[in-house]
Amino acid sequence: MIIVCKNTASQEKINALIKELEDKSLQVHCSIGTLSTILGVVGDTSKLDIEALEANEIAEKVQRVSEPYKLANRKFHTEDTIVDVNGTKIGGGFFGVMAGPCSIESEEQIIGCAKSVKAAGANFLRGGAFKPRTSPYAFRGLKERGLELLLLAKKETGLPIVTELMSLEHLDLFNDVDVIQIGARNMQNFEMLAELGHCNKPILLKRGLANTIEEWLMSAEYIMSGGNENVILCERGIRTFETATRNTFDISAAPLIHQLTHLPIIMDPSHATGKSSLIKPLAKSAVVAGANGLMIEVHPNPEKALCDGAQSVTPEAFADIMNDVKTLCHFEHKII
Amino acid sequence: MIIVCKNTASQEKINALIKELEDKSLQVHCSIGTLSTILGVVGDTSKLDIEALEANEIAEKVQRVSEPYKLANRKFHTEDTIVDVNGTKIGGGFFGVMAGPCSIESEEQIIGCAKSVKAAGANFLRGGAFKPRTSPYAFRGLKERGLELLLLAKKETGLPIVTELMSLEHLDLFNDVDVIQIGARNMQNFEMLAELGHCNKPILLKRGLANTIEEWLMSAEYIMSGGNENVILCERGIRTFETATRNTFDISAAPLIHQLTHLPIIMDPSHATGKSSLIKPLAKSAVVAGANGLMIEVHPNPEKALCDGAQSVTPEAFADIMNDVKTLCHFEHKII
Amino acid sequence: MIIVCKNTASQEKINALIKELEDKSLQVHCSIGTLSTILGVVGDTSKLDIEALEANEIAEKVQRVSEPYKLANRKFHTEDTIVDVNGTKIGGGFFGVMAGPCSIESEEQIIGCAKSVKAAGANFLRGGAFKPRTSPYAFRGLKERGLELLLLAKKETGLPIVTELMSLEHLDLFNDVDVIQIGARNMQNFEMLAELGHCNKPILLKRGLANTIEEWLMSAEYIMSGGNENVILCERGIRTFETATRNTFDISAAPLIHQLTHLPIIMDPSHATGKSSLIKPLAKSAVVAGANGLMIEVHPNPEKALCDGAQSVTPEAFADIMNDVKTLCHFEHKII
Amino acid sequence: MIIVCKNTASQEKINALIKELEDKSLQVHCSIGTLSTILGVVGDTSKLDIEALEANEIAEKVQRVSEPYKLANRKFHTEDTIVDVNGTKIGGGFFGVMAGPCSIESEEQIIGCAKSVKAAGANFLRGGAFKPRTSPYAFRGLKERGLELLLLAKKETGLPIVTELMSLEHLDLFNDVDVIQIGARNMQNFEMLAELGHCNKPILLKRGLANTIEEWLMSAEYIMSGGNENVILCERGIRTFETATRNTFDISAAPLIHQLTHLPIIMDPSHATGKSSLIKPLAKSAVVAGANGLMIEVHPNPEKALCDGAQSVTPEAFADIMNDVKTLCHFEHKII
Repeated sequence: MIIVCKNTASQEKINALIKELEDKSLQVHCSIGTLSTILGVVGDTSKLDIEALEANEIAEKVQRVSEPYKLANRKFHTEDTIVDVNGTKIGGGFFGVMAGPCSIESEEQIIGCAKSVKAAGANFLRGGAFKPRTSPYAFRGLKERGLELLLLAKKETGLPIVTELMSLEHLDLFNDVDVIQIGARNMQNFEMLAELGHCNKPILLKRGLANTIEEWLMSAEYIMSGGNENVILCERGIRTFETATRNTFDISAAPLIHQLTHLPIIMDPSHATGKSSLIKPLAKSAVVAGANGLMIEVHPNPEKALCDGAQSVTPEAFADIMNDVKTLCHFEHKII
Repeated sequence: MIIVCKNTASQEKINALIKELEDKSLQVHCSIGTLSTILGVVGDTSKLDIEALEANEIAEKVQRVSEPYKLANRKFHTEDTIVDVNGTKIGGGFFGVMAGPCSIESEEQIIGCAKSVKAAGANFLRGGAFKPRTSPYAFRGLKERGLELLLLAKKETGLPIVTELMSLEHLDLFNDVDVIQIGARNMQNFEMLAELGHCNKPILLKRGLANTIEEWLMSAEYIMSGGNENVILCERGIRTFETATRNTFDISAAPLIHQLTHLPIIMDPSHATGKSSLIKPLAKSAVVAGANGLMIEVHPNPEKALCDGAQSVTPEAFADIMNDVKTLCHFEHKII
Repeated sequence: MIIVCKNTASQEKINALIKELEDKSLQVHCSIGTLSTILGVVGDTSKLDIEALEANEIAEKVQRVSEPYKLANRKFHTEDTIVDVNGTKIGGGFFGVMAGPCSIESEEQIIGCAKSVKAAGANFLRGGAFKPRTSPYAFRGLKERGLELLLLAKKETGLPIVTELMSLEHLDLFNDVDVIQIGARNMQNFEMLAELGHCNKPILLKRGLANTIEEWLMSAEYIMSGGNENVILCERGIRTFETATRNTFDISAAPLIHQLTHLPIIMDPSHATGKSSLIKPLAKSAVVAGANGLMIEVHPNPEKALCDGAQSVTPEAFADIMNDVKTLCHFEHKII
Repeated sequence: MIIVCKNTASQEKINALIKELEDKSLQVHCSIGTLSTILGVVGDTSKLDIEALEANEIAEKVQRVSEPYKLANRKFHTEDTIVDVNGTKIGGGFFGVMAGPCSIESEEQIIGCAKSVKAAGANFLRGGAFKPRTSPYAFRGLKERGLELLLLAKKETGLPIVTELMSLEHLDLFNDVDVIQIGARNMQNFEMLAELGHCNKPILLKRGLANTIEEWLMSAEYIMSGGNENVILCERGIRTFETATRNTFDISAAPLIHQLTHLPIIMDPSHATGKSSLIKPLAKSAVVAGANGLMIEVHPNPEKALCDGAQSVTPEAFADIMNDVKTLCHFEHKII
């Protein structure tokens, strides 16, 4: 950590700060310039509170130089994490494709959808039972009944299932769910993250709408610090000034995440763009940029979807996308 | 609502869409141009799913023309809402100042702080017992013990108290809390919002880091649609590209909110900027821009604060800010 | 165009507005709802001033439904534009790779670099003679001397050259330049755009740091409306809240641009990310997302580069990137 | 400056880098941690190229700790700069109000407007002769004729005039203009900035749509480094995800700018919000936040304005705004 002291700081105050840091078993190196004094602090600085240091009257600027996450950090865990979901793997050389409708609407819809995405090559079934909606007047999912239908579809097809948890109060209903999804709006629901650290299921952690990659990894760290290291990251677009797409798909996150962490990352072009016509080119780009998987919304009849129709593709379009995805996975030496 | 049809849309498909809308008791007016046909849909469109319409193959663009919120809408409720917190009012001509430490640290700290902010003119005491922190390794508040100390300070000073709820599981502990705060990261925790709609306490709803004013009002609508109309909005800075301040203080929200809704709005320059040296000018600007109140972090010793020290002001600095705030409230005909 | 009238608007004022529009040979369809009246305006609305309409006291909201660009619009020109740069084509099925150093530093550097990028498969040489720099104290390019060296490299290798124009006053020096680049910071230098409309050279128009896709196409329209239809668009990252990469690479721009316009688009992962380690995965993703070409910074010795070293790749790394780019172009049926 | 070395960096490479820096007369202090080595570089680092350092293979991160601007820096020039525009002062305790139409449309319009804004208390007349417009089909100002009319209005009222320069080619026409305005889109038109450094007129430098405060000050530095120290900064809103206002008015810029630089700052709520109904509260907030002046668009008949009507206020509304502005200036001890 670096502390730049104001040029008005007295030597006495600087010494007091150095002593305070040394008392915490840190080493402090002092560079005295004409305009400012720079303190280089080395040792385990992860417990130092950067805000408290910034409040020190002599501090002009405080900057962390090492990442604030440890368990998620590639530096301390160089091997790729491969998450094993009851036999279906994701991470490292294993590519996972999670497909299905935004929300589960009926037995016919979810089972039909499950069969067609499986036939096209998906290895996970996704579907929403509890749906976060901006409007209190919108359809918020079939809830318990939705979970039952999803489990039926799992039984029918053998596909492991992924679905979103919106409140810890529903956790008991998720016993037979294979992967618990944390939505973008709950990425910093710290109470939920902490609790899921004590659960033994893989967690799919979506990136918040306006969260940095560092904050995202800190949320993964929350889960991991509770003991659950099976975290799969999911990029789903970030909020920017551009309105031509619903969000801006941050494709750079795929290669960058691999430098920073050992956790797998999948990418969701459906939520990122909100436009079904963009799913195919972006799904392909995600594969070659290094993603470990994809999440794609598929609906038998997008026009009649109760939610997110504009970004859903038909089963036929999905099969066409998967043809290219499989070829590109082969090119990238990924097993799908 | 406006639906712009693609220029490739057949008349048959357009007619089918018109019929579908008319079957929902809506009126549809059709404007045929050379490049596109525009459908103007009037009637109660609040239940129409914009996404489903966008998924219609003939739709090029779908735009809402009326606001999607009703209970929060100034159009249907022209009088300012005045929230009465056990006798202390906020909204309309009543100005509320919520001051206190980011987190409650000890009996001495919170009681000392409560007395000094009261003396300076604050009419609410704020303090965090449960703290949302980006890092799982940071101090997360004194929790239950923090609430007990806050209640002590309330008893000692008579100030109504405001504190953040981070999980519905803690709700039972909040019986004696006067105003429940929903933090920025939970602004779209829809399960929590829905539940608080059934509670009879005023809710302080902070704007999410990257949420639009419309989304913010939709979150207020969630609470109101459950029956609880005592919602106080709180602007606390939005995330932008600028890094010179922690967030960007959206001062325009104050006058704009008054055009859109009857709910009161307070402003929090402490979280907006992260810099104690900016609190005074921004607090003053909020008063004259039309805010109904302020939220300001005050700590007896910011350097030793366990949280948010860099943005906290001392009791002396707070008293100085309040001098100007009172003068400007007088100029604005606000009662403080 | 849609005009939503305020619910307080008198019928008289609405009629006056309708008449004003009809006098401009537009047709107006009126949808009367309980809360607002919607006017659907059809005909050639491109000359209507949206801001003047918004200033009308009865207007609550005014929305364009057709794109404000015409010459650049795919709707009126369905065939892909193929720009022919003295025999080297870009657009449609032709893929262009523009590579070279951020700034031209010496004869040895630019000629060595030109030879190695040509050997690796680049079909254009890029290099900056006039350099936009945030600081007045930084190296701003070799200027005229830089152009001379670039022309030497063109002579030596036969590669057409691309270089940035920073001021119209330098235009006379660009006679032998093959493609004139307009940098991100000049994307809305309207005087420059208008002037380049009268020039007969292809223009590479970089997207502004914080410009929407619509604004970008309007800048292309500026050039085209002057008579020069040889515009190549270049996505180079947009400014967002994320600081882990220099900018956010908007990969969605590639497929979206193809829906909106017939002009070719190339992508520049070097400026988009500022990190050489991300160039390869992002260059690959651009190819499969539908880009018509790439712009990549290559420097023989990035550590000694006078500008943009951190984002430059070595000639060896570039050759490695090109191996994958060629394979993926083949997969996409693009000729390189 | 701080250089964090990768933990894989050899001692030999680190020593080589230290030597390279010491050869530039800089002092280097080395802090060796278990995970990384931190180099603290002190001395005049303003000429060091941060990008070249980032390209060094052993560098993990490079951070500047001192501001890259010198002439504009408050640290080296503690007194407020007061710009004297032919007798009318702005900066320090002098408050400047620049009012007038977005574009000059006729003799009657500009002279009428000038008289009414002067009567209301404005001390500068603003008006656009050359107008930057997103669309090539929009009205781009009366150009030379506009300047002539503006000079007539100056003669008639004695108000100094402010108008935008869009191209260096027009500079000769600006001889009798009192303050040259650089628009947001030209804030990083470095050739123009450098040239204006050699001119002896005050420059009004608008902040770019998506430029940081640091970049803005670097643009001021460009002008100052050429010898022209009469720079007035103008905040006019930044681009964010929020669409309820045209831009987001960054009110924090006023107090923050005063900490960073001695240059005066004025604020433009008209362009910041695009909504005339928000001008009054935001103008007031700017005064108490510490601005040295205001820029406000006034038009005798906003509905008929050829440009920016939606954000223009009438002369009557302007007089009403000025009443409050004067009272608040008095409260702030500013002379208007």
